[in-house]
Amino acid sequence: MAARQSRVVHSGRACAPYGSNAVRRTYRTLEESRRLLEVAAGRSPADRYLDGATLLNVYSGELYPANVAIACGRIAYVGPSHAMVGPETDVLSLPGAVLAPGYIDPHTHITGMVNPVEFAREAVRGGTTAVVADTLQFLLQTPTDRIPDVLRTLSEMPVHVYWFLRLDAASPLADETRFSIDRLAPLLEIETVRAVGEVTRWPALYRGDDDLMRKIALALAAGRRIEGHAPGASYDRLVALAAVGWSADHEAITSDEVLHRLRAGVYTMLRHSSLRADLPVLARAITAERAASARLMLTADGPEAVTIAECGYMDHTIRQAIASGIPPVLAYQMATLTPATYFGLDEELGGIGAGRRADIAVLDDLRNPTPTLVLAGGQIAARDRAAVCTFPAIEWPLFFPPRFRPTWQPDAALFETRAADLAAAPDDPAGVRFPVMHLENSVITRRRDVTVPVRRGRLVWPDDVVRLALVDPAGRWVTNGALSHFTTRLGGLASSFNVAADLTVLGQDPEDMARAARRLLELGGGIVAVEGGATVLELPLPIGGVMSPESLPAVAARARDLYAFLRARGYAHTDPHYTLLFLPLDSLPDLRVTYHGVWDVRRGQTLVPRRDL
Amino acid sequence: MAARQSRVVHSGRACAPYGSNAVRRTYRTLEESRRLLEVAAGRSPADRYLDGATLLNVYSGELYPANVAIACGRIAYVGPSHAMVGPETDVLSLPGAVLAPGYIDPHTHITGMVNPVEFAREAVRGGTTAVVADTLQFLLQTPTDRIPDVLRTLSEMPVHVYWFLRLDAASPLADETRFSIDRLAPLLEIETVRAVGEVTRWPALYRGDDDLMRKIALALAAGRRIEGHAPGASYDRLVALAAVGWSADHEAITSDEVLHRLRAGVYTMLRHSSLRADLPVLARAITAERAASARLMLTADGPEAVTIAECGYMDHTIRQAIASGIPPVLAYQMATLTPATYFGLDEELGGIGAGRRADIAVLDDLRNPTPTLVLAGGQIAARDRAAVCTFPAIEWPLFFPPRFRPTWQPDAALFETRAADLAAAPDDPAGVRFPVMHLENSVITRRRDVTVPVRRGRLVWPDDVVRLALVDPAGRWVTNGALSHFTTRLGGLASSFNVAADLTVLGQDPEDMARAARRLLELGGGIVAVEGGATVLELPLPIGGVMSPESLPAVAARARDLYAFLRARGYAHTDPHYTLLFLPLDSLPDLRVTYHGVWDVRRGQTLVPRRDL
Repeated sequence: MAARQSRVVHSGRACAPYGSNAVRRTYRTLEESRRLLEVAAGRSPADRYLDGATLLNVYSGELYPANVAIACGRIAYVGPSHAMVGPETDVLSLPGAVLAPGYIDPHTHITGMVNPVEFAREAVRGGTTAVVADTLQFLLQTPTDRIPDVLRTLSEMPVHVYWFLRLDAASPLADETRFSIDRLAPLLEIETVRAVGEVTRWPALYRGDDDLMRKIALALAAGRRIEGHAPGASYDRLVALAAVGWSADHEAITSDEVLHRLRAGVYTMLRHSSLRADLPVLARAITAERAASARLMLTADGPEAVTIAECGYMDHTIRQAIASGIPPVLAYQMATLTPATYFGLDEELGGIGAGRRADIAVLDDLRNPTPTLVLAGGQIAARDRAAVCTFPAIEWPLFFPPRFRPTWQPDAALFETRAADLAAAPDDPAGVRFPVMHLENSVITRRRDVTVPVRRGRLVWPDDVVRLALVDPAGRWVTNGALSHFTTRLGGLASSFNVAADLTVLGQDPEDMARAARRLLELGGGIVAVEGGATVLELPLPIGGVMSPESLPAVAARARDLYAFLRARGYAHTDPHYTLLFLPLDSLPDLRVTYHGVWDVRRGQTLVPRRDL
Repeated sequence: MAARQSRVVHSGRACAPYGSNAVRRTYRTLEESRRLLEVAAGRSPADRYLDGATLLNVYSGELYPANVAIACGRIAYVGPSHAMVGPETDVLSLPGAVLAPGYIDPHTHITGMVNPVEFAREAVRGGTTAVVADTLQFLLQTPTDRIPDVLRTLSEMPVHVYWFLRLDAASPLADETRFSIDRLAPLLEIETVRAVGEVTRWPALYRGDDDLMRKIALALAAGRRIEGHAPGASYDRLVALAAVGWSADHEAITSDEVLHRLRAGVYTMLRHSSLRADLPVLARAITAERAASARLMLTADGPEAVTIAECGYMDHTIRQAIASGIPPVLAYQMATLTPATYFGLDEELGGIGAGRRADIAVLDDLRNPTPTLVLAGGQIAARDRAAVCTFPAIEWPLFFPPRFRPTWQPDAALFETRAADLAAAPDDPAGVRFPVMHLENSVITRRRDVTVPVRRGRLVWPDDVVRLALVDPAGRWVTNGALSHFTTRLGGLASSFNVAADLTVLGQDPEDMARAARRLLELGGGIVAVEGGATVLELPLPIGGVMSPESLPAVAARARDLYAFLRARGYAHTDPHYTLLFLPLDSLPDLRVTYHGVWDVRRGQTLVPRRDL
């Protein structure tokens, strides 16, 4: 062991990964430390010097004039000295500006149509320089031996992506080994995997689910955090989850629920997302005493592209926090230092302090969190709301092997619910009872039993119901369900954009549905609408069927078209993005379409089984 | 790698050490989590239930009524429910009491005459249930292969001892390999080693000392904190140290210095010790805004036995913080949750939250931090100021092999400063200039050049100077120095109690000095005073020459005798304990006696070389 240590120490990069599962607080190398010291001591010139601005010091909670010297991508010095300004130093004169640390989103999902690189490019424009993101789609789709590579590559962008490792699928899978403990354990050793979760099946954990308990124990032993997801959990149940290791939760939707989490010793993320804009309510829980333990954070929880394009990202969240009455300095601390501390990254991120990465948002005014200039790793990453830094070119097919391919031809029969499968007579005008998914809001469904007439062996759906099929991308099985209160009329809509990475097809015309599905397979994934035999909307998502190669604004424009299309067909909820994404999600009530069939989430029962083809 | 993980996961103890260098936030096992869940959910009875008290919730900064259920040594539930109270549950009815988390000292030295076990026994009486302690004496004296064992054993006491690993000796050593990077690196992998430092040679680090830089880079890569020690460092120098990795510092002695540390992004420990009772001054820096980042802590920094016996330990420090105007809840947070968070132990310690160790101080009143009842690991550890828990019996000679032994006979000549060694004439009534250590206060010395007459080849010391020799315990070398403003008269005082683990001998009569030294070797270490040929004081410290096997009150009684003896001889400073301890310390100004000789700390120069025997 001593020999191994020595090799690391005496090699050129003294801070090359020390051990396989270290939880580092900083990644600065020995060479970087040497350079930073020389600059800080005024013995060597800085690369860049931010002169004359006001510092938001999140450590001391103060605003005061201070300059910042940068070397090798990190902050070398903060204070009044100009000793490190040399002839080669790039001095930015910033009188009147406020320097805030780059923003951190402690909980996000970046497979929401926009790929992680384009997500990061957009994030940095608004001052966000680090996020902790979901690994769901990688675990679903990426070959095991390529996961470390893609996670590490994305962690090294100008916007640093850290990860929470999912412990289970978001929907029942044909291949359950994708989330087996043996597959997950080595991934826990990746340094930028800082947490596991989010643990959506909290009722199962509360009941003592053995698999979840074992995975969580393993994560705790590796020093990783446990990201919770306990919507609706009572205080007593939150305490029980904390006993098992729950270390944070972002699902409070009332101020009492904020307080319950905080009191239970759980780090509490206040969410303000495209799906739930809750900050005005949540902020009521915040008092100086309650904030003093620095265990409150802000999160946007994976907003969809249009919201980001129109409102911003964490800058928008901070703005909403301030507008909701949270003191401005605290609002910034909740989006900078506290998440860094929570994830054990406080010596790397979260504050404008010597040694930290030079991730800095330059503001006109503390009350306007949208920066005019952004530095990431000491480089100018965005100026006047335009990203100007370089992002990696990722060979996405390496990590998301083509999943949606025209190797088979979905036909209209695929979308017929067959009386025989329901043990119903081939002709029954009185009808059979069917558990329809009734969409209560964008994401919550309720079981609505509808009596559906049967003719020639097939169910004859009423006008207020659309067929909803979940189809294996390779055509080996289908689950035929039905959805109400989605649209009032819809020919066919096929979508690979969902948490199961399967094919969802909705509509009232089986021929249009089949055409949409076929076109989707030709596209390699995305969202396709067909009406009267003609394709009327295409939103290509060729990366795993869930992500676009395009920029966020381009994706947002396409998403707007999709939303407009659905609204024109009678969609009346707030967030079509999440409606589509969550159709197979097994952690929200009540009914879902899954690999098992039409699935009753609360009872854990299949109501209508899938059909193997 | 997957195979190794699997073995860990599927074994009986799923949370047995996961990797060699994990930085865990909790050590709870899978079995413990299962039990905690069952109790929290009310499906299984608790072992113990604290009923009817007021909870100090350090997470939410609130006081309110809440009960606490305990199982397998941890907190299973906190709240109103009684569902987990069963017939076998030990219910403690505590109306009117306040439940505070066990106190944590983030920075201590527990080799101050009292051994770690007895230190812990005393600490727990006052509600302290965890400390982060110095490893200096282990690194100096313990065989390398036995260090992990002793550190781990002491970490598992009712009072949990975590460690900061020294990066260098406190005084120049004959054997420099004791602090070599190759010796230290494997010790960094011990999970309870949470930090390195304290880095006393901060000026060397500021200059870029290669050895320190490499060791710090290694510690950062292992996810360990860097304990700073930068007395007198300016703001700009603190920033430079932060750039290298300095993560905390406890050396502020003015409120400006508190602010400088906080602003520099360095966790700031407010010290109130036997040596420096600074809280009234330091507290002036504390405002709600400055405290809101939760980066302020309290520390007692290794108080000597008499202070602890008379005033208490961290309970005393918290009391002083409150008396100094720090809001009570914040004062407790600074001694509980914040240190736990700083050391990455916030899921294990620092708050009364489910999953954490059941380390609880039961108070009569929030403003009186001295508890009437203390639980450690769920067991009643102290009641009415008496420790009632079991501590381990340590075979100290295994870890501190006998160092002071009567294998040789120090004689009077050892304590004569020889003219020949100073290149002086054998008889010179006009005298030679000698750099005397003038004791300015308990620990700071100033160089005071004194002209000393020479007769028959030896220096004839004036009456206001005592001889001060640092002697190799095995008799291979001696450094002969001189000290003024220590006592007005002193026959001979020998002491093995110092940071070099060598033998210091002071006095005005070389015969008494020799007798004291010989008696000390017979005792196996300690402090011995001889006057007129008779032993007048003995304080045995047979564990490494620095620690007693006796209880803290017994050691305190002996220390009082020592202090009284010295005061009777004219000692006029505040802390004889630290005066003796620091005589060879090379990180305090100005002059010290060391292995090199009489040492000028600021210049890093030997003024009078040692004499090899």
